[in-house]
Amino acid sequence: MSSHHIVRDDQEPALIIANGAACNPELLGQLLEWSPIVIVLDSAMERVMKLDIKVDVLLGDFDRGFDPNYYKEKQYPIEIIHTPDQNKTDLEKAFDYLIEKKIPAVNVVWATGRRADHTITNLTNIVRYRNLLKIVILDDHSKVFLLNRKFEKWYTEGTPISLIPIGTVTGIASENLFYPLTNESLTIGYKTGSSNHVTKDGIVKIEHLEGDLLLMECMD
Amino acid sequence: MSSHHIVRDDQEPALIIANGAACNPELLGQLLEWSPIVIVLDSAMERVMKLDIKVDVLLGDFDRGFDPNYYKEKQYPIEIIHTPDQNKTDLEKAFDYLIEKKIPAVNVVWATGRRADHTITNLTNIVRYRNLLKIVILDDHSKVFLLNRKFEKWYTEGTPISLIPIGTVTGIASENLFYPLTNESLTIGYKTGSSNHVTKDGIVKIEHLEGDLLLMECMD
Repeated sequence: MSSHHIVRDDQEPALIIANGAACNPELLGQLLEWSPIVIVLDSAMERVMKLDIKVDVLLGDFDRGFDPNYYKEKQYPIEIIHTPDQNKTDLEKAFDYLIEKKIPAVNVVWATGRRADHTITNLTNIVRYRNLLKIVILDDHSKVFLLNRKFEKWYTEGTPISLIPIGTVTGIASENLFYPLTNESLTIGYKTGSSNHVTKDGIVKIEHLEGDLLLMECMD
Repeated sequence: MSSHHIVRDDQEPALIIANGAACNPELLGQLLEWSPIVIVLDSAMERVMKLDIKVDVLLGDFDRGFDPNYYKEKQYPIEIIHTPDQNKTDLEKAFDYLIEKKIPAVNVVWATGRRADHTITNLTNIVRYRNLLKIVILDDHSKVFLLNRKFEKWYTEGTPISLIPIGTVTGIASENLFYPLTNESLTIGYKTGSSNHVTKDGIVKIEHLEGDLLLMECMD
């Protein structure tokens, strides 16, 4: 069983394995290596067991005949958290758990693919955790996170950058993007900043005044 | 080569094969059977050729070294449409093409999966085609479409129904959903109606006053 407990540093991002499409095992392995805590959501546990990963927390509403107790011994010690609240998704409950544990950051895999309703809900609901938890959603083609009002990061020329507004976002200004934005507004469904890219090696700056703006680094 | 030209009735939905994850060949086969026109987007053509499907239109900006002329003979007769406009996605250009041809409805496959930016853009941009084109996006787990102000459809008990607002949607009322909505507002990222389901065999009614509301029928 591959252990991820190399460094138990709560400043490193936790890892949540959600219940969508599985990612490349290599991506999962990279994220596991430094993760202080691994949370698996609900029946995804059945698929995770086949990957021989040590899980710290199994969280879900455990409906549809799924028996979490089966994993108590096989994954000892494991914390099993039953979360029947139907007003939140299991992913949101896992975020709440991490916030309570004062863990500042989390990577999320298997949150996309398969059901379109889960994919869009998982991607867009991260906006409500602004200032509470630094969340990055990853899959084999994508890295998604919520932007602070001012964002700066070094990128290689040509890196694809998509700016997706969750609702309406105003006052967007960019530096070093091929299709520059100058005090622009974007609105989901009507005007988005998908499929932009970095002009040249260097710092990309993106600012916005109001609203929730996701940055997606995606590759074919 | 499987022919889809069983009935050339322009009232049947056209079919667009976009450039995301491939769906189950069985789903594709069902949709092909009655489709009066099949449009393939850009380099998805390379993957479509392996499926031995007759394509009517190949549409894209054809950047990144893709040569559409290669298919002129192999898919004769085929219409090749070069659409370099960077302000629209290839999927939107295909919708515009169908509207111009006065085709009233379209099914879209391969529009989800792979890149998260493409998935969210494809799912949400259909709202701007209200009253112009009846669009249904399908994958192996999902069927997605924009709701009219008043929607009625017969469903089997337990059918999962997710209501996803693209922006804010007000005055939502439902009948025969397990978690009923009564003059409710939903806002993407903050409050959505994901993971509801049908209470009992019969008509489901969903009304809303303002905004763009997607219905997603999704299955694990």
